[in-house]
Amino acid sequence: MFSKILIANRGEIALRVLRACRELGIKTVAVHSTADADAMHVRLADEAVCIGPASSRDSYLNVAAILSAATITGAEAIHPGYGFLSENADFAETVEAHGLTFIGPTADHIRMMGDKITAKTTMLALGVPLVPGSDGELTSLEQAREVAARVGYPVLIKAAAGGGGRGMKVAQTADELEDAWNMARTEARAAFGNDAVYLEKYMDRPRHIELQILGDNYGNVVHFGERDCSLQRRHQKLLEEAGSPAISAEQRDAIGRTATEALSRMGYRNAGTLEFLYQDGQFCFIEMNTRLQVEHPVTEMVCDVDLVREQIRLAAGEKLGYAQKDITFSGHAIECRINAEDPVTFAPCPGTVAVYHPPGGLGVRVDSALYTGYRVPPFYDSMIAKLIVHAPTREQAIARMQRALDEFVVEGIKTVIPLHRQILDDPQFRKGDYTIHWLEQFTARLQG
Amino acid sequence: MFSKILIANRGEIALRVLRACRELGIKTVAVHSTADADAMHVRLADEAVCIGPASSRDSYLNVAAILSAATITGAEAIHPGYGFLSENADFAETVEAHGLTFIGPTADHIRMMGDKITAKTTMLALGVPLVPGSDGELTSLEQAREVAARVGYPVLIKAAAGGGGRGMKVAQTADELEDAWNMARTEARAAFGNDAVYLEKYMDRPRHIELQILGDNYGNVVHFGERDCSLQRRHQKLLEEAGSPAISAEQRDAIGRTATEALSRMGYRNAGTLEFLYQDGQFCFIEMNTRLQVEHPVTEMVCDVDLVREQIRLAAGEKLGYAQKDITFSGHAIECRINAEDPVTFAPCPGTVAVYHPPGGLGVRVDSALYTGYRVPPFYDSMIAKLIVHAPTREQAIARMQRALDEFVVEGIKTVIPLHRQILDDPQFRKGDYTIHWLEQFTARLQG
Repeated sequence: MFSKILIANRGEIALRVLRACRELGIKTVAVHSTADADAMHVRLADEAVCIGPASSRDSYLNVAAILSAATITGAEAIHPGYGFLSENADFAETVEAHGLTFIGPTADHIRMMGDKITAKTTMLALGVPLVPGSDGELTSLEQAREVAARVGYPVLIKAAAGGGGRGMKVAQTADELEDAWNMARTEARAAFGNDAVYLEKYMDRPRHIELQILGDNYGNVVHFGERDCSLQRRHQKLLEEAGSPAISAEQRDAIGRTATEALSRMGYRNAGTLEFLYQDGQFCFIEMNTRLQVEHPVTEMVCDVDLVREQIRLAAGEKLGYAQKDITFSGHAIECRINAEDPVTFAPCPGTVAVYHPPGGLGVRVDSALYTGYRVPPFYDSMIAKLIVHAPTREQAIARMQRALDEFVVEGIKTVIPLHRQILDDPQFRKGDYTIHWLEQFTARLQG
Repeated sequence: MFSKILIANRGEIALRVLRACRELGIKTVAVHSTADADAMHVRLADEAVCIGPASSRDSYLNVAAILSAATITGAEAIHPGYGFLSENADFAETVEAHGLTFIGPTADHIRMMGDKITAKTTMLALGVPLVPGSDGELTSLEQAREVAARVGYPVLIKAAAGGGGRGMKVAQTADELEDAWNMARTEARAAFGNDAVYLEKYMDRPRHIELQILGDNYGNVVHFGERDCSLQRRHQKLLEEAGSPAISAEQRDAIGRTATEALSRMGYRNAGTLEFLYQDGQFCFIEMNTRLQVEHPVTEMVCDVDLVREQIRLAAGEKLGYAQKDITFSGHAIECRINAEDPVTFAPCPGTVAVYHPPGGLGVRVDSALYTGYRVPPFYDSMIAKLIVHAPTREQAIARMQRALDEFVVEGIKTVIPLHRQILDDPQFRKGDYTIHWLEQFTARLQG
């Protein structure tokens, strides 16, 4: 096991990693920008090194400074957290080239999954389903009809050279296919000088479902079930659940088996997350994140696992030590991301936290680097806390989250706590009846 | 289910009950003394009623004022918490006479267990073991020899009329019995004018083990395993664990079966705790607490149960709804009681909390009514917070507690946090090798 780890991150995730290290008896090195000299992760680490000015580019993305800090302090491994350098294959490679351990998958796998096309073709070859559609370019309307009949309406005709929604047309029924075909080709020709088109099933009300996996260095891969991350605003997740209100245990087992077999064949190591669009019983792979996710705590709560501890253990070369059948799912967990933002306009609200008082009691977990008197700097992500609850049922988890939000005091800056209260009160959310479009419609209605 | 509950308590336990009510959708009425007007439970309750001046006798023990508060606010039930009126049979009776529900056992059971002699004879009759010894007064040295041989040395010869250690002699071996017999009788005659003596097994290194049980109004009783509460100073518990490092699953099952059968035959309702001295595989009943215990959270963590929610459900007449086989034990939990006391002299340290920052993250629970700026009043119990951790193993739970204690900031008043750090560092504690005498010896050594 490592005796010292450098944490190449800031905020709550730096603290999350620090806590896991401390519980493993591993010394920690914090790195920080000049703006973060008073940050909680700096205060609690065994050692701290300033790696540059406020700008992320010059500090948290400054590979040379981070490697120097690791060398000077004698750290043996680097945990990248999420964001910043966590999915930078070159960084992972450089870390390993310096004789240190990168706590994450291999640089090759990071690179492979970083290229979204390669990621999809790799996964498809390993048996993981994508959005159903034509196998490349369509040669005729007749062929389009055949494929559409196979995947089911509605379908999307998309320009092969396309992007930004241009050359993209929906056919809700077979009657609309010819028009969509003609319009898409005409638009594609005009926009890209190329009228090649392909066809995909149009998922009009998908959920964003992701699957947490862990692999060791010896080909053993397990999954820890799904998270429902459909509640997003501008592709930013706001509230996550485990399990998904839409997924049955049988569906979880089936997609889990497919995913773990694929990743085991790849020789995938450490933590990773497969993201899917899900609708009407179909999982369609969209991308893989080769790192710890922000929302990993909801999985920890229902599976009773410490994912960061596992990441560190596996990176040190330990075996997984348990099999899929040992992983059980208990109760329901919800995470609310608390952002320093206006709850109506979503404008960031950095500033000084006049009072910070987190909620407590049974089934409540708070992951946050805030403290009373802390100045939230304007340079970084606006997420300042994660409030996670666990309870036997989804209904009880919602009630627990409501009472925890009511207890949560963050004064001096605006946060999205009031928005979370409104979401949890909403009858449709309470039924679990939502798609990836729900939150934007909900906030538009509130602003309306 | 009730629509409104009055909480006849203060501090963290008032908050604990309030949280359970809120999650059940039940309105809460807080009562408070004039000294507690700014207390957290008052701030968070739906309604609050001042019931008297600072002195407990005139406020938290003021039955008339509490019943008036319940009547005025339309509360349908009263939760007494622990301490104060929680084991007052007359109070329970008065509450019920007013047409309200007392959230706890029947007044008869409270009364029965409040009389320690009746409690013991009742439990013995129901098959629960007591400290082994003679069946009442001994008539001869010869009889003493027979009983001593049966229960095993060391034994205690005790004056039947005794108390305060007078007329009490230990015989470590059979050779010492005659001397102990003679000396005890002589002392008893001198002190009480009565030389009747009896014999008990002398437990020289017992643990304090207690068993959590719940019963519904229909004769169904289950247990939630044991807590080890051996770490006490002047009969005040300081740190509790679930499960006990000394008890095996088979021992738990066996004593659990005995206890639940006894309480089912009694028709015991709601929450209760059987306290035992435990040594060398023997459980000896000493008393029963007919209420929620301070240390109930460690049981909640390992059994994944909300005991206060269950208390409320059962008091409302709901059935238990699960059987003993449905209760499983997962991992290990530890509770550190954080008292506002000097960690060396144990002198109470009321005052203003300049900074309050509780620890967070995976497996950490804080039950506390403290907040930054709160003035800890000098009138009540010095316990200001309970820090509870849960982890897969005892070793991991200790590591988690250590890192949580390191994060815990309470400035402006002294607390026993430094003492807890020392306990958790101690090799003998870490081995789980302790008795009810350990903590006093440990603190004497620290003071020495």
